[in-house]
Amino acid sequence: MNFFAIGGISRMTWRMRIFDLARRHATIRSIGSVIGWDQETYLPPSGAGHRAAQLAWISARAHELAVSGEWRDALGEAEAADVGADPETTANLRELRRGFDRATRLPVELVARASEASSLAKHAWAKARADSDFATFAPHLRKLLDIAREKAELWGYADEPYDALLENYERATSTAEVAALFDQLKPELRRIAAGAVERSAARRATLPPGPYSVAAQQRFNARVAESLGYDFTAGRIDTATHPFCTSLGPGDVRMTTRYDENDFTSSLFGVLHETGHGLYEQGLPRDDFGLPSGSSVSLGIHESQSRLWENHVGRSRPFWEKWYPEARECFPQLADFPLEEFLAHIRRAEFSPIRVEADEATYDLHIILRFGIERRMLRGEITVEEIPSAWNDEFRDLFGFTPADDRRGCLQDIHWSMGGLGYFATYSLGNLNAAQLFEAAKRDTTVAAGCKRADYAALLRWMREHVHAPGATLDPADLMRQATGSPPATDAYLAHLRSRYL
Amino acid sequence: MNFFAIGGISRMTWRMRIFDLARRHATIRSIGSVIGWDQETYLPPSGAGHRAAQLAWISARAHELAVSGEWRDALGEAEAADVGADPETTANLRELRRGFDRATRLPVELVARASEASSLAKHAWAKARADSDFATFAPHLRKLLDIAREKAELWGYADEPYDALLENYERATSTAEVAALFDQLKPELRRIAAGAVERSAARRATLPPGPYSVAAQQRFNARVAESLGYDFTAGRIDTATHPFCTSLGPGDVRMTTRYDENDFTSSLFGVLHETGHGLYEQGLPRDDFGLPSGSSVSLGIHESQSRLWENHVGRSRPFWEKWYPEARECFPQLADFPLEEFLAHIRRAEFSPIRVEADEATYDLHIILRFGIERRMLRGEITVEEIPSAWNDEFRDLFGFTPADDRRGCLQDIHWSMGGLGYFATYSLGNLNAAQLFEAAKRDTTVAAGCKRADYAALLRWMREHVHAPGATLDPADLMRQATGSPPATDAYLAHLRSRYL
Repeated sequence: MNFFAIGGISRMTWRMRIFDLARRHATIRSIGSVIGWDQETYLPPSGAGHRAAQLAWISARAHELAVSGEWRDALGEAEAADVGADPETTANLRELRRGFDRATRLPVELVARASEASSLAKHAWAKARADSDFATFAPHLRKLLDIAREKAELWGYADEPYDALLENYERATSTAEVAALFDQLKPELRRIAAGAVERSAARRATLPPGPYSVAAQQRFNARVAESLGYDFTAGRIDTATHPFCTSLGPGDVRMTTRYDENDFTSSLFGVLHETGHGLYEQGLPRDDFGLPSGSSVSLGIHESQSRLWENHVGRSRPFWEKWYPEARECFPQLADFPLEEFLAHIRRAEFSPIRVEADEATYDLHIILRFGIERRMLRGEITVEEIPSAWNDEFRDLFGFTPADDRRGCLQDIHWSMGGLGYFATYSLGNLNAAQLFEAAKRDTTVAAGCKRADYAALLRWMREHVHAPGATLDPADLMRQATGSPPATDAYLAHLRSRYL
Repeated sequence: MNFFAIGGISRMTWRMRIFDLARRHATIRSIGSVIGWDQETYLPPSGAGHRAAQLAWISARAHELAVSGEWRDALGEAEAADVGADPETTANLRELRRGFDRATRLPVELVARASEASSLAKHAWAKARADSDFATFAPHLRKLLDIAREKAELWGYADEPYDALLENYERATSTAEVAALFDQLKPELRRIAAGAVERSAARRATLPPGPYSVAAQQRFNARVAESLGYDFTAGRIDTATHPFCTSLGPGDVRMTTRYDENDFTSSLFGVLHETGHGLYEQGLPRDDFGLPSGSSVSLGIHESQSRLWENHVGRSRPFWEKWYPEARECFPQLADFPLEEFLAHIRRAEFSPIRVEADEATYDLHIILRFGIERRMLRGEITVEEIPSAWNDEFRDLFGFTPADDRRGCLQDIHWSMGGLGYFATYSLGNLNAAQLFEAAKRDTTVAAGCKRADYAALLRWMREHVHAPGATLDPADLMRQATGSPPATDAYLAHLRSRYL
C-alpha cells in the first residue's frame, strides 16, 4: 500500500478505519478457514456436531461485521475523501463498496433461510444420490431455486437472473458473454473429444500395477510442488477425501490430496492442480491481506492457475522428460514402462458420465451441459421435475450415451445442494484463461525457453506479475486483457487441445 | 441436566438464558482451542504472525462475553429464581458466579496490561534461557510479579497473595493447606529419592539401542491408549514439541506426543500421561458442555488422572506383563531384554536439574522448590534479583548439587513468563490425588482384581463415576473426600513411592 502524502493524517485515518475493518473481517473469516480445514483433514467423527456450531458462530460474526453500520460509515467516509487518491486505494474502495452493497441487499431473514435450506438440502442430496432418487431431492432443489431467483432479483441484473448469480463467482461477466464462448467451444470440443477418445481407446496405455507406496507418493509430490515454487514454510499438504486448497491467512496456504495405491498420478495431479491455486494465494500481496488488492479476483482466474500447472505444465512432455527419471526412482514399477506409454496414460481420454472423473479432453462438455441446464432453470424454461430428462437428453447429445441413473446423472454434483447455482461455468472459464495466459506468457522468450527445459521459474514470475500482483483490483476480463492483450476467448484453448489430442 | 417440573416454563427460561450464554462462551473458547492446537501441530512457520492475531481476536470475544452486562443480568436473574432448584443447577450457578466475580474484579486495563507484559516476557524469557542470562528476564519478571500481586489484591485472599493465585488453578484450596502437605512430603521424599537414585545407579538398566521406528511407536501407543478406554472416534494423537492434551469441544479431545527413535518409552509415557487427561475430558458429561457440571474441576484433579494412568498403571508390573510381549513384536530389539531389566529402565531414578526430565521418584522435589520460591516472592521475602541464588541454595539443599547455570536453574520453566504464578503446586497435588484415588479405587475388589491382570475397565468405570461425572460441581477437596473418604493427604502417595522405589 502506498499512502500519498497529500491529505496527510486525515486521509490516513479514514483509510485506516475501513481498511482495518476489512482486515478484521478477513481475520475472522480466516479463523473459519482454519476450523474448516481441520474439519476436512483431522476432525474425529464425534466432533462433527460441535464443529458445525463453531463454524456457524464464526460465520455469523463475519457476516455481522460485513453488513454493519460501522462498516457502512467507515466506507462512506473513505469514499467521500477519496478524490485524487492513488488508483489502488480507489480500486480497493470500489471493490469494498461492491461487496458491501451486494451483502446488504439481502435481508438477514433471507440469508438465514438460504443457509437453513442448503443445510437441509445437503443431507437430502446425499441421501438422494446414494439412492439415485431424484424425487427426494426435488423439493429442496425447488426451494433453493426459488431462493436463488429471489437473491438475483435483489441483487439485480441486466439480462437474466443467471447474471446476478454468476457475479458471485466471476464478477463483471455476463451470461451472454459466457454463452457466446461456450457456443464457440461446443462444436470444436465435441470433435476433439471424439477424436481423443478414439485415439485413447486404440492405444490402451495401462500403468504397471501397484502398490505405489503412499510415502513415496508424498515424497514425490512434495518435491514437484516445491520445485514449481510452492513455499512449504507457508503451506503444507495433508490428506482429505476431496483435494482442495485453502488460505488460512497470510503465510499459511494449505492443500490436500488423496492417495490411490494403484495409480500415483491420481494424488500427483491433485497436488499439481492445488499447487496452482496455492501459488496464486501465496503470490497475492501479503501486506494487503484482507483488502481487495490482497485477494483473489474470481474463480475463473483462480482455476486458470490450477489448470495451468496441472495441464499445461504437468501433462507436458518437457515436464516428464525432467521428472520421469525421479518418478522411476520413487516407483520401481515404472522401470520398464516407457515414457511414451506414460504420457499416453496421463493423457488418456474417455467419455465418463461423472464430471470429477473426466479428463482434460472431455471435461468442458460436462460444464456446457450444466451451464445450459442452470440457465434454463433460472429462466423458468424447465421445471425442477424436468431436470433429469433434460439432463439425460443433453448428455446423450454430447456424449452419445445416457447415464445409467440419476446418481451418475443430474444428482452427481454437490453444488446445487449448497445453493451454488452459477458456479459451474467458472471451471471452463478457468480452462480458457489458462490456455490464453500460457500462450501469452510464452511470447516472453525466457518463459518459452524455460518451459522447454522444464524450468518454470520464469513462468511463475510472469504469473506473479500479470495475474497474482493485481489481486482483485481489476475485473477478470480486464486482467486477461492487460495480461494477454485480448479478452477471454476460446482460440488458445482449442489450439492447445487440438495439438495435444488430435 | 435434570429440569425439575416445579416452576415450569419460567424456570426453564432463566436457566436457558445463562446456560446458553455459558455454552456460547465455551463454543467461542473451543474455537480458540482448535486454532491453538493447530498452532502446536501443523501451522507452517510463516503463519505464526497471523495466528497470533487470530488467537487474540477470539480470546477477546470470549473475555468480552464473560464480563458482559448480558451475562451479569442473566446470572442475577437465574440466582434470584434458583430457590429450591436441583442441586446440580445450584452448583452450576454458584460456579458461574464465582467465575464471573473473579473475571469482573480485574479492570480491562489490567487484563490488557497483563497480556502485553506476558507476551513480551515470553520472548525475553526464551532469549534469557538460551543465553543463560537472568538479567535479561529480571525486569519482565518484576513486572509480572507486580501484576500478579495486583491481581491477588483485587481478587482478595484470606492469608497471603499466593492464595488468590492458586485459586485460578485449584479452587477453594489454601496455600497453608498445600504448605502443610508439602512439609509432610519433603523429608520422606528426600529419603525415598536418595534411595531410589542409589539403587538405580547400581542397577544401570540400559534399553537396547534403537532405532525404534516412529511408525511402530505410533501403532503401539495407539493400541495401548485405546485399550485403556481412550475413544479414537472422539480424539486423535498428533506430534508436537511438547506433549499435551486439549479439548476442542464435546466429542473432540486430542493429545500429542513426541518421538525419540532411541527410546520408545518416551513417546509412550507421554501418551499414557495425556491419555489420563483425555479420559477425564472424554468422561465429562457431554450434554453439559460449557457448564461447570460438564467441565474439569481443577489442575490438581486433572493431573491426578494423567499421573494415575502414567505411573500407577503404566509403570506397574501387571501392565507390562500384559503389554511386554506386544512391545517385543513392535520392537524386535527387546527380544533378549528381560522384563525385569525393562521395568528397571522405566523406573530408573536420578537427580536431574531439569523438572521436565525428572522421574517419578524425584519429581516432587522440583515442585517443592518452586512452591517455596514463588511463595517467598509473593510475600516479598525475596526480590527478583535474589531468585537465582535462592533457587541454587534450595536446589543444593534438596538435590545435593548446584545447577551448572540459570538455564538449568531458575530460567528453565516457561510458567512465570506466562504470568502463571501459583501453577506449579498443582503438579504435586496431582501426584498425591492420583495415589489416594488409586488406593480408594482398589478397595473395590473388581477394580483390584482387574488391575492385577491389567484389565482396567473397572478402574476407568470407578474414575468415571467418582471423578469425571461430577464435573466441576464439587470443590477438589470435597471431590477427594467423597471419592476416597479423606481430604487430600500424603500417605497413599508416600506408601506408593516407598513400595516401588525402596
